[in-house]
Amino acid sequence: MYIVILAGGSGTRFWPLSRKKSPKQLISVFGGKSMLQRTVERVLPLKPKRVIVITNSLQAEETARQLKNYHRSARVDIIEEPVGRNTAPAIGLAASFIARYDPTGIMVVLPADHYIVREEEFQKAVMKGRESALNGYLVTMGVVPTRPETGYGYIEADTALRGPGPFPVRRFVEKPSLEKALNYLDSGNFYWNSGIFIWSVDVILDKILEHMPDLAAALAGLTFNDDIWELKDFNLQIEAIYRVIKGESIDYGVMEKADNVMVIPAQFGWSDVGSWSALPEVIETDSSGNVIIKTKHEINIDSGGCLVCGDEKLVALIGVNEMIVVNTDDALLVCAKDRAQDVKRVVEELENRGLTAYM
Amino acid sequence: MYIVILAGGSGTRFWPLSRKKSPKQLISVFGGKSMLQRTVERVLPLKPKRVIVITNSLQAEETARQLKNYHRSARVDIIEEPVGRNTAPAIGLAASFIARYDPTGIMVVLPADHYIVREEEFQKAVMKGRESALNGYLVTMGVVPTRPETGYGYIEADTALRGPGPFPVRRFVEKPSLEKALNYLDSGNFYWNSGIFIWSVDVILDKILEHMPDLAAALAGLTFNDDIWELKDFNLQIEAIYRVIKGESIDYGVMEKADNVMVIPAQFGWSDVGSWSALPEVIETDSSGNVIIKTKHEINIDSGGCLVCGDEKLVALIGVNEMIVVNTDDALLVCAKDRAQDVKRVVEELENRGLTAYM
Repeated sequence: MYIVILAGGSGTRFWPLSRKKSPKQLISVFGGKSMLQRTVERVLPLKPKRVIVITNSLQAEETARQLKNYHRSARVDIIEEPVGRNTAPAIGLAASFIARYDPTGIMVVLPADHYIVREEEFQKAVMKGRESALNGYLVTMGVVPTRPETGYGYIEADTALRGPGPFPVRRFVEKPSLEKALNYLDSGNFYWNSGIFIWSVDVILDKILEHMPDLAAALAGLTFNDDIWELKDFNLQIEAIYRVIKGESIDYGVMEKADNVMVIPAQFGWSDVGSWSALPEVIETDSSGNVIIKTKHEINIDSGGCLVCGDEKLVALIGVNEMIVVNTDDALLVCAKDRAQDVKRVVEELENRGLTAYM
Repeated sequence: MYIVILAGGSGTRFWPLSRKKSPKQLISVFGGKSMLQRTVERVLPLKPKRVIVITNSLQAEETARQLKNYHRSARVDIIEEPVGRNTAPAIGLAASFIARYDPTGIMVVLPADHYIVREEEFQKAVMKGRESALNGYLVTMGVVPTRPETGYGYIEADTALRGPGPFPVRRFVEKPSLEKALNYLDSGNFYWNSGIFIWSVDVILDKILEHMPDLAAALAGLTFNDDIWELKDFNLQIEAIYRVIKGESIDYGVMEKADNVMVIPAQFGWSDVGSWSALPEVIETDSSGNVIIKTKHEINIDSGGCLVCGDEKLVALIGVNEMIVVNTDDALLVCAKDRAQDVKRVVEELENRGLTAYM
């Protein structure tokens, strides 16, 4: 089994803790290890043959630093993309590497910046997905929804054959309206699209050839060194490819069009931790519903539902509700919890004003 | 003219910017000079013969440090009280010093931690008060109220003789209910009690003898060095006095009982800056009604009525209204603006938990 971790995200929604050089996957939102490190540790019990981490040049150094201690447990390779082209090229590239070494190897694709509560459940789900992948299916993990979330895409399954799944996928649906999300939640056969995939490399490369011929052609032109894990003149070849291929998600490019997609219902406690306001999903709140991280001491007078990142200071809250406060070395964010999506507007404003030191 | 500045306050309401060793009068709430320094600079144009600053041992060193550059403009003496005993003993002590040098000297008493917008108006009011003081009156500054404030004491004047005042004082009244405060505001002859007094030292010492005989007796026992500004064995004598005299305000001890009190209506833009929420009275707000101090840069998305002290960081606000956020080296306060009075509860909690480093 080969693990491919997509770690090139440049998310701005955890500003000011996340920055261009240290995006969400490379920071310790919860204290302790970064989300990337947690993602790697989550798959090590699966005893993968290789872990391939795809990142970009801006983040490569920090990515390598964070991963250097895992070489004892598994061979970890880092592939630097010269520029982000969404998930399909990254996945195609990784599949091409793996296929040269192991043409029918099973490849598990994981975003580097998602949170999973119950790791053993996750590992069981992957092993179950592996069975379907061995049978030639493209497998996706569908998270059993717990609320009418309008911020995620959904997967509609054909659950006529009851049981624990996997189920055939009927269709992928875009982020829905609240009304639709409520229907999906009620229906029992809609799942959140987690971006976690399992397939055999020959199957995904076949499907890329079928549905994304341009990408397939670009990948077919790659020439490798004698060491089959190495491209000749890596930078030159990669840059030539990334200059011509267009950015596309694997969901849109392949999954929505393929006829052999199965979904595994997943209940391992998942969150894409898409913004500060999502943290209470993944970090235990105190008895007042506050999440207070990176603090020395806390004093709470009549405050609840807050998220405070305290930069190792004493934090005192008085009569404050549903507020996000994030303190770092050089920046302080105060944001109404229901406005967490607008944190990216701050980063845009920093860009506009040329305040790049804060980005 | 002799200026006596009462600078022994240990206010906790500007925590975490103010601390035990650096209370409100010694910090730079507005950026730049401290409130004590501003108070001294405000009186220098009056060309006082001496400025006497009364503080306590905990704050004496920092007080001396902040005042050392003013000696070029006026002789500044610092008197250390061993323990706070409210305003009457401090005022009696200062009057005793001055009286030995200049038995009918005019003494102006000023709190060190009040804010005054129009300094020339203030200086004119003091000169007007001096006239009445020369005529044997105890003069107090009464701030013309601009709102039905329930946090201040009031002074009722006899304004039968119209004109700009001074007016005879009918009575001092405690902090009123909102209903009473509204009546006071309408009446036109009620003023906020500013704690600013002007009198001749022989008059105030006479009145202390009349209304506070215990304090007068203690003061009468003081023995001076040849240098009439120096007590013999200062610490021993002061500690002996402060051990026996009881704490009392000059308002309660003398002013409310004396029959020769006049009030000068004052309109120089005054605030006692009693809590964080009072800052917008004295610092200009931006176009969104925010006061943002000690910041490098500000980004405001749909936020207003906030007070942010940014510890020289970039501050970003998103959808935040009527909030106080104060960031220091070691502490972060987030407080609803209408709960600013509860900041002192945080300091109590620090005391209870033994977190003295933050006090």
